[in-house]
Parts: sequence; structure tokens; C-alpha cells
Amino acid sequence: MIYLDNAATSWPKPPGVARAMSNVLSSGMGNPGRTSHRLSMEAASMVQECREHLAQLFGIATPLRICFTSNATEALNLAIKGVLSQGDHVLCFSMEHNSVWRPLVALEERGVELTVVEADPNGITDVASIERSIKRNTRLIVVLHASNVNGAIQPVGEIGRIAHERGIAMLVDAAQTAGSIPIDVEAMHIDLLAFPGHKGLLGPQGTGGIYVSERVNLRPLKEGGTGSDSTSPHQPSYYPDRLESGTLNVPGIAGLNQSVRHLLQKGVAQVARREATLTQTLLAGLMRIGGITVYGPSVELARAAVVSFNLRGIDPVFVANELERRADIACRPGWHCAALAHQTQGTQDTGTVRLSPGPFTKTTDIETALSAIAELAAEHQA
Amino acid sequence: MIYLDNAATSWPKPPGVARAMSNVLSSGMGNPGRTSHRLSMEAASMVQECREHLAQLFGIATPLRICFTSNATEALNLAIKGVLSQGDHVLCFSMEHNSVWRPLVALEERGVELTVVEADPNGITDVASIERSIKRNTRLIVVLHASNVNGAIQPVGEIGRIAHERGIAMLVDAAQTAGSIPIDVEAMHIDLLAFPGHKGLLGPQGTGGIYVSERVNLRPLKEGGTGSDSTSPHQPSYYPDRLESGTLNVPGIAGLNQSVRHLLQKGVAQVARREATLTQTLLAGLMRIGGITVYGPSVELARAAVVSFNLRGIDPVFVANELERRADIACRPGWHCAALAHQTQGTQDTGTVRLSPGPFTKTTDIETALSAIAELAAEHQA
Repeated sequence: MIYLDNAATSWPKPPGVARAMSNVLSSGMGNPGRTSHRLSMEAASMVQECREHLAQLFGIATPLRICFTSNATEALNLAIKGVLSQGDHVLCFSMEHNSVWRPLVALEERGVELTVVEADPNGITDVASIERSIKRNTRLIVVLHASNVNGAIQPVGEIGRIAHERGIAMLVDAAQTAGSIPIDVEAMHIDLLAFPGHKGLLGPQGTGGIYVSERVNLRPLKEGGTGSDSTSPHQPSYYPDRLESGTLNVPGIAGLNQSVRHLLQKGVAQVARREATLTQTLLAGLMRIGGITVYGPSVELARAAVVSFNLRGIDPVFVANELERRADIACRPGWHCAALAHQTQGTQDTGTVRLSPGPFTKTTDIETALSAIAELAAEHQA
Repeated sequence: MIYLDNAATSWPKPPGVARAMSNVLSSGMGNPGRTSHRLSMEAASMVQECREHLAQLFGIATPLRICFTSNATEALNLAIKGVLSQGDHVLCFSMEHNSVWRPLVALEERGVELTVVEADPNGITDVASIERSIKRNTRLIVVLHASNVNGAIQPVGEIGRIAHERGIAMLVDAAQTAGSIPIDVEAMHIDLLAFPGHKGLLGPQGTGGIYVSERVNLRPLKEGGTGSDSTSPHQPSYYPDRLESGTLNVPGIAGLNQSVRHLLQKGVAQVARREATLTQTLLAGLMRIGGITVYGPSVELARAAVVSFNLRGIDPVFVANELERRADIACRPGWHCAALAHQTQGTQDTGTVRLSPGPFTKTTDIETALSAIAELAAEHQA
């Protein structure tokens, strides 16, 4: 199989990730922070090691401000609902995934004021229009680091600088960038960083997290089951306990710990260079095929390893099925949970076919995919 | 190691659970419901199989009304916050875990009326006092199936019958019973069943779920990232999509699927009998040791496989540490996240030492534990 659906879930995983998970189950690991016996202590120490690895990866000085979640959607909900109250104003952009858009719409119905800043048709947001949209009651700016539809990268650092000058918190949705594009929370002025474990971080599904800088305090989404302040009727005030309710996904975190260790050794910058080369090859190849429309930033601009295209007049689902049938290519057709982004780039009626290489994708995989697409395009010429 | 902390996390796991998880990572499994390629379809089909296995285990007619969560705490928060609105009245019992108590206290601060019905010092709730506590605006009764502190079992079926006669929903916290004591949602009149995957169900940490009967509709706790109704700004109205936001813990669910399959083959009734025998042996042995106080229902009453005790005048943490040092016993001292229960049984100042056997505990493990406790008791006689 030629796996080009890394933007949904990365695969394959680095060596040792599967083993780290199954070891937790076979050799036993208790509940971290719930008691003091050996298995429980081992779990707590592994979980803390994973926090430290993630902190190193993102330039975070205080690993305990990283709270594990079950995925990026949970992290985004936690951040959005943990900061915003009735009467607050929040900014987001017209490229958002529904993991940001839906919680914001839900809050809008409960008295939070929402402004969706328009990105250009390629998905790039103009910093000046963000500045113009800021109001007296703006409390939060949500920034999608890179679009899961077309890979467009937002100027996070610049937006963060503006946010901080105005005393506004910035939440970054790093679903498509954590582990594949370098992130430094201090240099980029990030207050809240939401990330999945199973995409660029190369860990298992069921993992993710939220970094909460000391400039921000979040109301919890869930209470109880922390194992700390056991006799109190209230959630602990300190992190990560405040936001980590219920038994953690210890096997998942063990897998993530292993994959982040791999990334630290390899270096995210190197992954980014590799993925950029693959993406450029893919884009250049697609643009040579007649009848193909490629969406997103022009080829010379930086983008995440996400490429969306359509073959003139052909249903994306048909295209994806044909690519699988002919060349065993796994890719993803449709709207990618991001209706706003499709409205912005004008593909709301059809969706697109999305190809997303990963750090283990080979150049020959891209060539095979391009040949299969070219063949299909030739058969369906107008 | 003699593992007697199954009430926190069960261990060992049945054969094949670790392998089922690591297979997901090594052979690849995509995002269920996100696209149509083979890996994604395989994931979706495995997740559905796990829902069907759980439905069979709990007598649930509609597997799609089972929604996966990351643990029982999340399931309880979802159910409690998804049902109750300002002005509603809710009943719980004085044995609750803080996964129920803390969300209820949080809602009380937002205008929900809360009555904590007193259990007797052994943890048993009098059904008549529940009936007396019901008000015109009672919307929900939360029942802890079995206490995680002393194993006391509540008369769920009887409470459910009363709830249904009055048109009140019943939420059952099956954290200590799912997989180790038979549960039938229809016979027991259960509207909402919250369960962890990593305790009696013998699956991995990071799994759990909530069953939502068709008599109840829950507001979601999180929105977005469903992959269904992709172009809508709102969460889907249908289950499980309504409550399953973000990528599921596919490896965890694969492990749970395997462990539930094992339980279906073995039969929960047989697990219950086995654990009851071990628990009786443990209780009888403890009661023969001078200086030991055992808490909870008297020995002839049914209880879950959870035994709490104290050794006169000795800190439970010291006792647990000594049991580990002398006989490599893993158990749990303290308050077990259940301050209310300790107030009810009068151990709020010290906590207790908790021993919790599991289906793989051997009779000789119990004997070794009893010898170690007897030795310690003899050394600390008044």
C-alpha cells in the first residue's frame, strides 16, 4: 500500500512504538499518581518523561503545563471553552477545521461573540485584517497553524506578537504541524498549543495534549478522577492535574513517548525538509497533468505536507477509489471536516482529493501516485 | 508481584490484548469513518465489532448508542453535564467517587440542585430514603453500582424501577462492576451506563464508554472532529457520532475488543463467582487477624472484589509500603478518590488500605497477602 493519508493518521510509526505500547500491557503498568506501588510509579515516571520530551520538542520551559488529552479535538475544546465566557469576543479564520469551528459556534449560541476573519482563496490570512478585527472584548485568537485541506501555513509568530501586544491569548491548532514543522512556543508567542499524538508526532491514536502557558488559566471540561487532592470536592488548581481527569491512556502515552524520542533524535527540521521535498515533487507533478486543479498556496510558498486537488468534473470519491483500486493508494476524498476551508477555496460543492505524505513516504511512492493520477486524467479528458 | 490493585487498573490482561493493540500500529489502521480506503474501513469495522461485543455483554439492543470515551470519568461527566440544566434536581449517594461528586458540585455552583442521600456506614443505601428524596424537579439519579472503597453493592434494579415510575433518568457508574458483575441495562432499568475499559473489562487504559438509552438525549461535552456531517457547523444529532469527537483510540479499542471477546467466552457470571470466592477468603482471613478493622458490608452480603481495612493505629501508606517491601504486594492506600465514602464509613482522617483481587488472582496470592498482613499486625500489637 502507498499510504498518503498521513494528515488523518500517520503511518507507519517509528520503530519501537508498537512495542512500547504492548509492553505496558504485558509487563504491567499501574495508574500513574494513584498509588505508590512499583507498577504505578513506573507509569508515573514514563508519563513525566513523555511530558519532558514534548516540552523539549516545543520549547516549553514547564513540562507540567502540558496536559494529555485523547486527541487534538479534545485539546481544542478544552482551550476554547476553558478561556471564553459570555460577552467575550473570539477571532478565528476561514480555514478552520470543525474541531475549532463547531465549539466556537456552540459558544456563540451561549453569548460569545465570534468573528471569522476571511483568508484569501489560497488559505492565507492577512495580518492587517486580523488587527482590524480586534475589539475591546477580544479574549482569544485561534490560529490554525497549517490547513488540513490545502496545507496553507499561517504567520503564527506575527499573529502571536500582535495578540500579546494587546493582552489577548493565542491558541494554536497544531493538528497538521506538531512534529512535522518546528514549533517554539516562546518565539511564536503561543499561549495555548493543541496537538494530536497520532499525526506528525507519529504516536498512537487516542493521544494528544494541550500546553497551557502560565499566562493563561483554563476552566476544566471534566472534573473528578484525578487521584490528587483526593478529599476535595473541587478539581485541583495546579497543572496537569487540573485538566487530566480519569485514568490516562498509559499505553498510548508510552507509544507517544517512544515516537517523540525518535523525532527528537531525528530533528523536526529534518522531517520538515524531507516532507517539503516530497510535497514539492507532488505539486510539480500534479501541475503537469491536464485537467487537474491544485488548491492552496502557490508552489514556491511554504506549506504543510497536504495537497488537495480535483480532476475536472470527476467526483473526488471516485478518484480516490480508482487510485486505491489501480495502485493501492490510500488517500482521502471529501471535505476533511473543514467546511469553512472549502468555502474559502471554492470547493464547497465537491470537496477535494487529499494526498498527504509523511516522513516515511518514498519518492517512488509519489511517482507511482502521479502516474496513476495521470492515467486516470488521460482517460477522463474532456 | 502479587497484584491486588485491580480496582485501579486490572492486570494481567487476557491473552491477545497487547497483540491486538500493537497489530493496529504495525499493520496499520486508519481513522474509522474518516475516509474509505482499506485501513480506514478495517478500523471502522473493528470499532463496530467492539460496540457489538459490549452491547452483548450489557444486554444493549442498539450498539450504536454506545459511545467510546477515554475513561469512565469522561463518561460520567458527559452523562451528568449532558442531562442536567439549571433548575434541575439530582440525587446521588454518600459513597460516590469524585468522578461523580466533583462534576455534581461544579453543577451545583451553576444552579443545579443536589441531594446526597446518606448510605449506612457500610455503604448500603436504603431505597425508601431515595424515594423520600425525590422532588418534582428531580431529573437524574446517579447510582454507584459498587463502591471502589469497600465494595458495597447498591440495589440498582430497584432504584431503576423507582426512577422509571417517576420518569427520572438513572445513570449507573459501573467503574467497579463492568465485566466483573453481570449487568443487564433493560432488566436493571439503566438509562445511562458509564464504564471504564481498563478495570473489569480487562482492556487497556485510555478506553471506556457511555451507553445512552433511547429514552435520553445528551448534550455533547466536545464538538467537532467527527468526520460525519462534515459541512455542518453543528454536532451530528445521531449516535455515536454526537458524542465521539476527535479521532478514536483505535489501538485501545482493539485491545478492549479482544478483552471483551474473552469475557463473553468466559462469562461474567463465572468471573463474578471466582472473584466472590477470592473476596470471601480475603475477608474471612482478615477478620481472624487481631487489630484489623475491615470496612463495608458484612461478610455474607454480596460485594464487589474490593476490600478496605486498617491496622489499628498504623498509617495505611506505611502498611502498603511494608506489604510491597516484604511480599511484593501491589495494593493501594489512601482515599481512593472517594472522600464522601470515607466520611460515610468513618475513615476520613486516615483513609484505608485497599486490596482488590481480579479474575487472574490465585488463591495462594490471597494466602500470601494474609500472611504478610498477619505478620505486620503481630509486630504492631498494642
